[in-house]
Amino acid sequence: MTTQMEYAIRGTASEEMRKVAKDEGLPVKRIVEGVRRGSIVVLDGKRGRGVRPLGIGEGLRVKINTNVGTSADLCDLDLELEKARVAARFGSDTVMDLSTGGDLDAIRQTILREVKLPLGTVPIYQAAIEAIRSGRSIVDMDEDDIFNTISKHAKDGVDFVTVHCGITRQTVENLRKHQRVTGVVSRGGAFLAAWMIHNGKENPLYSSYDRLLEIAHEYDLCLSLGDALRPGSLADASDRPQMEELMVVGELVERARKGGVQCMVEGPGHMPLNQIASNVNLEKTLCRGAPYYVLGPLVTDCGTPYDHISGAIGGAVAAMTGADYLCVVTPAEHLGLPSVEEVKEGVIASKLAAHACDITRLGERHSDVDLKMARARAKLDWETQMRLALDPERAKAIKERVRGSRRGCTMCGPYCTYELLSKYFGDKKATGEKCF
Amino acid sequence: MTTQMEYAIRGTASEEMRKVAKDEGLPVKRIVEGVRRGSIVVLDGKRGRGVRPLGIGEGLRVKINTNVGTSADLCDLDLELEKARVAARFGSDTVMDLSTGGDLDAIRQTILREVKLPLGTVPIYQAAIEAIRSGRSIVDMDEDDIFNTISKHAKDGVDFVTVHCGITRQTVENLRKHQRVTGVVSRGGAFLAAWMIHNGKENPLYSSYDRLLEIAHEYDLCLSLGDALRPGSLADASDRPQMEELMVVGELVERARKGGVQCMVEGPGHMPLNQIASNVNLEKTLCRGAPYYVLGPLVTDCGTPYDHISGAIGGAVAAMTGADYLCVVTPAEHLGLPSVEEVKEGVIASKLAAHACDITRLGERHSDVDLKMARARAKLDWETQMRLALDPERAKAIKERVRGSRRGCTMCGPYCTYELLSKYFGDKKATGEKCF
Repeated sequence: MTTQMEYAIRGTASEEMRKVAKDEGLPVKRIVEGVRRGSIVVLDGKRGRGVRPLGIGEGLRVKINTNVGTSADLCDLDLELEKARVAARFGSDTVMDLSTGGDLDAIRQTILREVKLPLGTVPIYQAAIEAIRSGRSIVDMDEDDIFNTISKHAKDGVDFVTVHCGITRQTVENLRKHQRVTGVVSRGGAFLAAWMIHNGKENPLYSSYDRLLEIAHEYDLCLSLGDALRPGSLADASDRPQMEELMVVGELVERARKGGVQCMVEGPGHMPLNQIASNVNLEKTLCRGAPYYVLGPLVTDCGTPYDHISGAIGGAVAAMTGADYLCVVTPAEHLGLPSVEEVKEGVIASKLAAHACDITRLGERHSDVDLKMARARAKLDWETQMRLALDPERAKAIKERVRGSRRGCTMCGPYCTYELLSKYFGDKKATGEKCF
Repeated sequence: MTTQMEYAIRGTASEEMRKVAKDEGLPVKRIVEGVRRGSIVVLDGKRGRGVRPLGIGEGLRVKINTNVGTSADLCDLDLELEKARVAARFGSDTVMDLSTGGDLDAIRQTILREVKLPLGTVPIYQAAIEAIRSGRSIVDMDEDDIFNTISKHAKDGVDFVTVHCGITRQTVENLRKHQRVTGVVSRGGAFLAAWMIHNGKENPLYSSYDRLLEIAHEYDLCLSLGDALRPGSLADASDRPQMEELMVVGELVERARKGGVQCMVEGPGHMPLNQIASNVNLEKTLCRGAPYYVLGPLVTDCGTPYDHISGAIGGAVAAMTGADYLCVVTPAEHLGLPSVEEVKEGVIASKLAAHACDITRLGERHSDVDLKMARARAKLDWETQMRLALDPERAKAIKERVRGSRRGCTMCGPYCTYELLSKYFGDKKATGEKCF
């Protein structure tokens, strides 16, 4: 098969690239060129799932991803499907299935069938869990367990997989000498670190990276190069282990491109506000402009249970500097599996951050909706204001909680500035078109 | 009486400056020097209210303010007091009483008595409302109405007042020629603009600024120079009216300092993310380093009903660049008077933004709590994690919603990275002190 990247290298626009160009309001050649250079990935959704192709990267709208998935303690597929539906409704661009409880194949296949968004997974979870379920342990996985699981996910029609290829024996060895506050907080990273130390062998995802590229090529699977050594606390941010892994990942990005395979790079994590811009710049440099997929960053370790706001602040600063794809953080982060309502809160916070950055990254066509809202506000056109609100239901409930007797709202009552303008300067002036 | 600024000009540390220095962990001379230069204001709380003095400005912890107050449509003093108490509990540094409904004197005096935080007010509201209540209209206020109200608030023991001195006949005249989407969104600003146009006279707060300085000097009242022409939408951000007012305000800052009076400057409003840093820099330049008190900024017009998150994003970026004081925005912004729960959500969002900036502005002593949280997390010490959470009650409720059978949480269940580290690398390693 011809991969998206191979189309782009030939200078040919695939059907998926055309759709992405249309959705983004950009010339097709910009998408083709972006895919060729690797600064854009196209999740093609072409495996008959009825999913619209999605572009992520340079010059495109900032995208957001929502994680769903069962855990051993809370395994309810219907609940996870409901989370995915709510995520889609409030503007999530993709979903990742991070299930670790129940029948993992059936869960993934159901989500692929039911959720009409590009889907990502982390196959190492399943490989590790199946090793345990077969009476062995995580460190007993073999290379085939890992690669066969990746193949299975690709075959099912998953659009992208997180693969922790950048954590190597050398980086783990260096990590042993390094004082970290929160060690390895990536689950996949911890599995592989344990495996390497126990077996005294190199990370198969690194040593057999070509085997991974073959699978990715066969299914045109996009790789999301995981950050096993992402900082799990402010104190660990931008430290040597994080940077060492990022440098390895940079090399792997180049090898993926040579293999005709698309890839993104995953990023932190926890990070002080004033380190975010330099981290994004480093990723863009070391990884040759690969789309940056950030998990937050969370700007304080103490945000519990408001890490969705912490993540929205960090995500906005990251996307302002060039990050392309934000992972939703929910209020349940660091506490447990989120509820449907918490997923909704997280999606809205990330969406707000992404939209705020689109306005500055992409200019006028992305602030159109803001202009409509501003005009509706100046006219006291509540119907339009409610329609354009991030969450019309909650907005209406607040507006209607106390009914004022006037056109304005209960904040100002009779002292509404828009009403005042109308009273003193004639109705035309209150339309907001001209203030006096 | 000797004002804080006069003490500082003499090089003398007041009792209040000493307390601020202690609370901020800084040498007293830095506070004295900051007050002298006008880059720090000290809200002295010395009128027997039992309020701890508070410093706002350069090199200090970022402060947050919460607005409370009745409106004509919802006038319930107990409810507003409850909001103030919740604001104090979740870390608000000050409260402003913006009441426009009920017995305004009694409400203000009750809040002064009951709430042990520095208090700000906007006296022009009361002057305008009393003009209406006496059967006249806003444009019938006279100069004495305005200044007598300010005196009354000062005498009651208010710590600072918002005064819209920078909106002048000239700026209003220029505004008439200018196309704005949302006109004048400041209530006080709209009152004064209407007054000036109707009466064909200059803004008394500008033309009789010396009279204002005399009152402020008499009671050592801090002035918060209001931004009557703040942008009410992204489209109006950084426009000529906003900049003209800021330039006038810059002159007034200098006159206040010469009069021995402390002042802050209020800022936007609605503003695209990529304009915030330059706005903060402009304020710091044009207003000679006066503390900047920002109302948001909101980074999208469409954040309803999540403007608290929009404001936290904008406030974090502003404070990272040098803003000193953030006004809490609640989910009810643009919709109505907030509930107690919505005030809490707003306070937490602003507090999170302020804390994230303190870490980058002030270094180690402000990330101490983050380090404690990170260490507790690595040790799975849930008690400490709950104690350090922004909202321990909500954190506990999420944690306990589903009880896992293990030391970790229901997100990872048996695949907790901290447990894994412990299992494969010995218990000592799981303390987080060293990862392997």
